[in-house]
Amino acid sequence: MSLTPMAALADEGMWLFSNPPKKWLKEHYGFEPSEAWLTNLQQSAVRFNSGGSGAFVSSEGLVITNHHVGADALQKLSKPDMDLVAKGFHAKTRDEEIKCVDLELNVLISTEDVTARVDAAVKPNMSQSDAQKARRAVMNTIEKESLDATKLRSDVVTLYNGGKYHLYRYKKYTDVRLAFAPEQDIAFFGGDPDNFEYPRYDLDICLFHVYEDGKPAKVEHYLPWSKSGAGENELVFVAGNPGHTDRLDTVHHLEFLRDRSFPSAMRTIYRREVLLNAYSQRSLESARRAKDELFGYQNSRKARLGMLAGLQDPALMARKRENEESLREAAANQPELKDAAKAWNDVAAAIDEWDRIYVDWALLENSTAFNCELFSIARALVRMADEDAKDNADRLREYRESNRESLEQQLFSEAPIYEDLEATKLGDSLSMFMEQAGADNEWVRKTLDGRSPRERANELVRGTRLKDVAYRKELAKGGRAAIEQSKDPMIQLARSVDPPAREVRKTYEEKVDEPMKQAYAKIADARFAIEGTSTYPDATFTLRLAFGQVKGYTEDGKAVPPWTTIGGAYKHSDAHGAKPPFRLPASWLHPAKPLDLETPLNFVCTADIIGGNSGSPVVNKAGEYVGIIFDGNIQSLVLDFTYTDEQARAVSVHSSAILEALRKVYGADLLVDEIEAGRGK
Amino acid sequence: MSLTPMAALADEGMWLFSNPPKKWLKEHYGFEPSEAWLTNLQQSAVRFNSGGSGAFVSSEGLVITNHHVGADALQKLSKPDMDLVAKGFHAKTRDEEIKCVDLELNVLISTEDVTARVDAAVKPNMSQSDAQKARRAVMNTIEKESLDATKLRSDVVTLYNGGKYHLYRYKKYTDVRLAFAPEQDIAFFGGDPDNFEYPRYDLDICLFHVYEDGKPAKVEHYLPWSKSGAGENELVFVAGNPGHTDRLDTVHHLEFLRDRSFPSAMRTIYRREVLLNAYSQRSLESARRAKDELFGYQNSRKARLGMLAGLQDPALMARKRENEESLREAAANQPELKDAAKAWNDVAAAIDEWDRIYVDWALLENSTAFNCELFSIARALVRMADEDAKDNADRLREYRESNRESLEQQLFSEAPIYEDLEATKLGDSLSMFMEQAGADNEWVRKTLDGRSPRERANELVRGTRLKDVAYRKELAKGGRAAIEQSKDPMIQLARSVDPPAREVRKTYEEKVDEPMKQAYAKIADARFAIEGTSTYPDATFTLRLAFGQVKGYTEDGKAVPPWTTIGGAYKHSDAHGAKPPFRLPASWLHPAKPLDLETPLNFVCTADIIGGNSGSPVVNKAGEYVGIIFDGNIQSLVLDFTYTDEQARAVSVHSSAILEALRKVYGADLLVDEIEAGRGK
Repeated sequence: MSLTPMAALADEGMWLFSNPPKKWLKEHYGFEPSEAWLTNLQQSAVRFNSGGSGAFVSSEGLVITNHHVGADALQKLSKPDMDLVAKGFHAKTRDEEIKCVDLELNVLISTEDVTARVDAAVKPNMSQSDAQKARRAVMNTIEKESLDATKLRSDVVTLYNGGKYHLYRYKKYTDVRLAFAPEQDIAFFGGDPDNFEYPRYDLDICLFHVYEDGKPAKVEHYLPWSKSGAGENELVFVAGNPGHTDRLDTVHHLEFLRDRSFPSAMRTIYRREVLLNAYSQRSLESARRAKDELFGYQNSRKARLGMLAGLQDPALMARKRENEESLREAAANQPELKDAAKAWNDVAAAIDEWDRIYVDWALLENSTAFNCELFSIARALVRMADEDAKDNADRLREYRESNRESLEQQLFSEAPIYEDLEATKLGDSLSMFMEQAGADNEWVRKTLDGRSPRERANELVRGTRLKDVAYRKELAKGGRAAIEQSKDPMIQLARSVDPPAREVRKTYEEKVDEPMKQAYAKIADARFAIEGTSTYPDATFTLRLAFGQVKGYTEDGKAVPPWTTIGGAYKHSDAHGAKPPFRLPASWLHPAKPLDLETPLNFVCTADIIGGNSGSPVVNKAGEYVGIIFDGNIQSLVLDFTYTDEQARAVSVHSSAILEALRKVYGADLLVDEIEAGRGK
Repeated sequence: MSLTPMAALADEGMWLFSNPPKKWLKEHYGFEPSEAWLTNLQQSAVRFNSGGSGAFVSSEGLVITNHHVGADALQKLSKPDMDLVAKGFHAKTRDEEIKCVDLELNVLISTEDVTARVDAAVKPNMSQSDAQKARRAVMNTIEKESLDATKLRSDVVTLYNGGKYHLYRYKKYTDVRLAFAPEQDIAFFGGDPDNFEYPRYDLDICLFHVYEDGKPAKVEHYLPWSKSGAGENELVFVAGNPGHTDRLDTVHHLEFLRDRSFPSAMRTIYRREVLLNAYSQRSLESARRAKDELFGYQNSRKARLGMLAGLQDPALMARKRENEESLREAAANQPELKDAAKAWNDVAAAIDEWDRIYVDWALLENSTAFNCELFSIARALVRMADEDAKDNADRLREYRESNRESLEQQLFSEAPIYEDLEATKLGDSLSMFMEQAGADNEWVRKTLDGRSPRERANELVRGTRLKDVAYRKELAKGGRAAIEQSKDPMIQLARSVDPPAREVRKTYEEKVDEPMKQAYAKIADARFAIEGTSTYPDATFTLRLAFGQVKGYTEDGKAVPPWTTIGGAYKHSDAHGAKPPFRLPASWLHPAKPLDLETPLNFVCTADIIGGNSGSPVVNKAGEYVGIIFDGNIQSLVLDFTYTDEQARAVSVHSSAILEALRKVYGADLLVDEIEAGRGK
C-alpha cells in the first residue's frame, strides 16, 4: 500500500499526460515513450461524456468503446420492437449507421497549468464565501476566454483535491453514429454474477463513427491494431478517463465515506435496483425500458460494495492512518510547512459540516428526492433562466457559457421518456423524501401538496408537457418570464424547491468544498515538498496514462491464468446450464464461420484503473491497440483508496478476439478491413 | 374508514371465535351460525407455525394450505437434484409421502379469559420493571399449569395491545407429511409482478397429512368440500390467523411506524433482496438454496410498500387523527375515564423510548446484525443454558417450560444449512452492523475481532460445528458449563454479544412494552366504555373469523370481475410472451385430461384479512369449503390500519379449480377421492 508514487510499487499510477512516469518506465522497463508516441495515444483516446472511454482505431474516425459504455446511446435509440441493447446492431454499410441522440465525444488536444491565475484570484484573507465566488468566477472566465480563442471545449480541472488547476481543451464530436454492437448476452456474458469477477469471457465492445458537418470525419490520430495482441508479462499502457479515486483523502475523509456517504449511496442503490427489477418484471417492454438504468445500479452496487469492503477493512484503514501520521509529522517538523500541518483539521471541519447538511444536500440539491428525467429537465430550465440573467463569471458552474452547447445537447435530447417508468421512479423517490426529511418537513409538504407520494408523482408526470422537446426549447427561449408564467406542474415543482436546494448548495460550496480545496491544496504542497512532484493526482474523469504487465495471479492457492479463450466461453456457459445470464446468443452458437477456439478472449494486467476507464484502449510499446479495458476484478475495487498489484487486475477484451468475432460471428468484414487498413505495413 | 366495529361498514372485522359478530350477521345477512357450525370451523382450521393458515378437508387428516405457506417445508426437504419448491411433488400413495423436517401445526381447542388473573398479578403501584416481571411470571405460570393439566400447547395471548389476556389451548401436530404440491410456476404464476395484484391465475395450494404416533391421524372436525364453490355476492367466511394489524395504534404510534419502523425494515428488506438475488444468479443451485427466503423478502417488500403508502397518505392519517381526537375528548368528558385520557401520552412516551433504543434493539436483540441460521441456533443454545438455571416464572418468554417442545422442534431441526449462503448473509449483516452502529462501537469491534466483515463471517461460518445437530444436542444437554467451555466460534460470538442484547431487551420490555400494555389497556377500557364491547382486537396470529361477500370492484373506471377462469391463465401467459414468471409449467401446457377452461380459478371477496391469513379456508353458510385465501390485492394492504371494502379484496383459489387441476393436470385421484368422500350425501 502506498499513498505516493515515491513509494510506488511496480505499476502504480493514473498519470497526467503532461507529467508521465518517464523515469520509472525507463528504469524499470527500459522504455522511453517519445513525444510523438504520447501525442498519438493522447489524441487517439476518446472520452464518452455519457461516462466512459474509447479510442479511434482508423483514420476514418472509427471509435471503439465498451458495449456497456455505448449502452446509454443504444438504449436511447431503442424502441419497443427494436431493442438494440439486448439484440445488438450491425450497419452493413455506412449508410445504415444510426445517429446517436445526444452522445458527445471529447478528444484532449492540450492542457495548461492555470494554478497561478486561480490562486491569484483567491486572496488569502477572503471569507470562504468570497473565496468560493472568486474561484468560480476565475474558472468560468478562463474557460470562456479559451473557448472564444480556440473554439475548443475548455474545462478547468481541479487536481490534487485543489492543489492544482489545469485548463483542458477538447475537440468535441456531437455527430456520432452507431456502426456495430454485439448482443448483450455476449457483451455482458455472465451478467451480474460475473461482473467484477475473473476469469471472464465477454465481448464488451461497441463501434461508432464520428462525423463533422454531416460528413465522415478524418482523424489525424488513431491507434493501429496489433497483429497478435499482448503476450504474458508484456508491458502495456492504458489511456482513459478514470472517474474518481480517494487515495489522497485524509483518514477523517475516508471515515466519512465509510460511515456516511457510501452507506447512504448504497441504500439508494438497493431500493432503486429493487424498484427497477420489479418494474422490469412487469412485461418484456418494461424490461427493455429500464435495462440500461438497471444495469447501472447493479454495476454501482457491486463496485461500491467492493470499495466499502476496503473501507471496512481495519487493516487497510490502519495503514492509511500510519501513512497520514508520518506525513503530518514530517510537515510539522518543517517550519515552512507549518501552515500545512493544520490543514488536516481544516479538512475534518469541512467534512463535519458536510455530514451536518448531508441529508438535505443529497435530497434537494442532488435531487435524490426527485428521481426522474422530467424533473432534471425542469430544474435545468428553471436554473438556466435564473443563471442567464447573471454575468458569466457569477453563474453556477454548469450554466457557464463555455458549457452551454454541451448542456443543450442533453436538455434538448430527443431520447425517449416513458411516463410509467418516470412515475414509478418519482413516486418511490418522493416516498424516500418523506422518510428521510420527515412527513412534517416544509418542502415535503409543499412537494406533496396533500397527496400521497405515488398520487403526486402520477399527477406530475402525467401533467407535465416537458416530454415535448419543442416545449423545452420554447421555455428556454422565453427565459425567466416564461418560467415564472408556466403552469406546467413539473416546472412549478422545480421552482418551488429551488430556494432550499440552492441554499444547501451554497452552504456546501462555501463551507465544505471551498475550505476542503484550500486545505487539500496545503496538504498537496506539503506532499510535493516532502515527497517530490513526480506524482499523480486522484482521478477526475480526465485523461490519464496507466501502465502494467499482462499477468495472472493466485487466488485461494490457485493460479488464475492471464487470459481466457473463446473456447472457454462455451465451457463456462455449459457449466451454468446455458441459462441466462450464462446463455450465449444464437450468433455464437452458430457462427457464420468456425471460430478459432484458442483465440485469447479476455486478459488481465496490472495497470492502475478504476470506473470511467471502461472502454480505454490498451496499447503496447509500439503504440498498437492490443485490447480494451472493460472491468476490474473484485480485488481491484480497493484501488479507489490504494494501489496493489497482488491480486488487483484490470480486465480487457483481447484485440485478437475482437477481429475474430467481427469477422466470423458477425461477418463485419468492412469494419475489419477499415481496422486492418490502419495497421500500416 | 373506521377504527371501531360500532362504526363498522359492511364486512369489517377479524373476530374472536369466542365473540363472533352474531348480531351483525343476523341483521345484515339473516344468518345465525350455530355453536356446532362455529366449533367445526374452529377445529377444522389449522395454524402453520412457519407462518400461515390451513384447514382439514378430510377425516383422514388431510390439510390444505398455500404453496407459499408450505414452501418453508418444501424448501427444507429439497436437495440439489430435487427442488420441491420449483418442481412440486405428488405422492401417488400415502407410503410415498415425505415427513417434514420441523413443521408444527396447531388446532385451537379452547380459549379462556385470564385477564383478571394477569391484572391481579400486576399491582397498581409496581415499578415498570416489577410490573413487567410480574406479568411475565403470571403468564409463564398460567401456561405451565395449563400444559400440565391438559397436555395441550398453552399460550397466553395479549389482545387489544394489552387490554385483554386469553389463554389459548392447541392440539399440536409435529408429524406432518407432504402429499402434494404443484410447480411454483403455477402456484406463484405471475411471480413478483402479479403478487398482491388482481386479476390472478394461481393454483397456490399444498397438501399434507397429519400423523400421530407414526400412524395416520383421524380428525373429528374437517370441512366438507363444496360441490360448486361460491357464487357472486354470496356470503362467505374466513377462518385463519391474521398475523398483525395496527388499527388500534395511536396516531403517535402510527407516525413511529411511518417514520422509523417501516423505513428501517424496508432498508433491510431492500439490501437482503438484492443480496439474495445476486447470490441466486451465481448458479442454478444457488437459486434453489435461496428460493424460499428470497420470495419471503420480495413478498414482504411489496406488502410493506403498500402499507407504507397508507401511512404516507395524508388523508388516511387525517382521518386517524380525527377519530383519535373524538375518542380522547369523549374519555376526557367522563370522570371515570380520566385515567384513560392521559394514556395516549403514556403510549407516546413509550414510543419515544423505543425510538431512542431502536437501532441497538434491531441490531442486537432482533439480530439484524447477525443474519444467519447458525447464529440463531447459537443464541438459542446460549440463552437456553442461562434461562434453564432460573425458575420457569422468571424466564424470557420463549424459554418458558410450556414452549420447550416447540423450541426444540426448531433448534434440533435437520433442515439443511448451506455454508456459502450463511457466510454471504452474515458478511452482509456484519457490514450493516458496522454501518449502523459505527466502526468504533464496542460490540462491532468485539464481533469483528480485527477482521473485515466478510472475512469474519467466513471464519465464523466455516469454523462452527453447529451445522451438526448432534453437537447442538450435546451443548443443550451440557447446559451452562458446556456453553462456557465451548471453543465454537459462533457460540463464543453469541455469548459475547448477549449482555448488550439482553440489556436493550430489558429496556424494551420495561420501558416500552410494559408501559405500552398498561396504557393501551386503559385506552381499550375507554373504548369499551364509549363504543361498547362488541368489538374485535388487532390481529395477533391467532384464530379469527372474518366474513364478506364474493364481489368484484371498479378500478380506473373499469369493472374488475369477481373471478377469473382457468382459460384466463393461458391468455395471461400469452400476453406476457410466456416468459418467466408468466410461463406455465409443462403439466399445464399438456394436461393429462382436457381442462374445463370455464372453471373459476381465483376469486375475490370483501372479507377482512391480512398476512398470516394465507391458506385460510373460505367456507359458505353451510360450512362447506369453497376456496383458499392466498393473497390480498394491493388496495387491501391498507387493511393493516383501517378496513375498507371500496376496492380492498381478499384473493382466493376457487374450490372447483383445485379439484379440476388435481384430477386433470396431476391425476391425483386418490386425494380427490379422499376430499370428495368428506362431502357427505
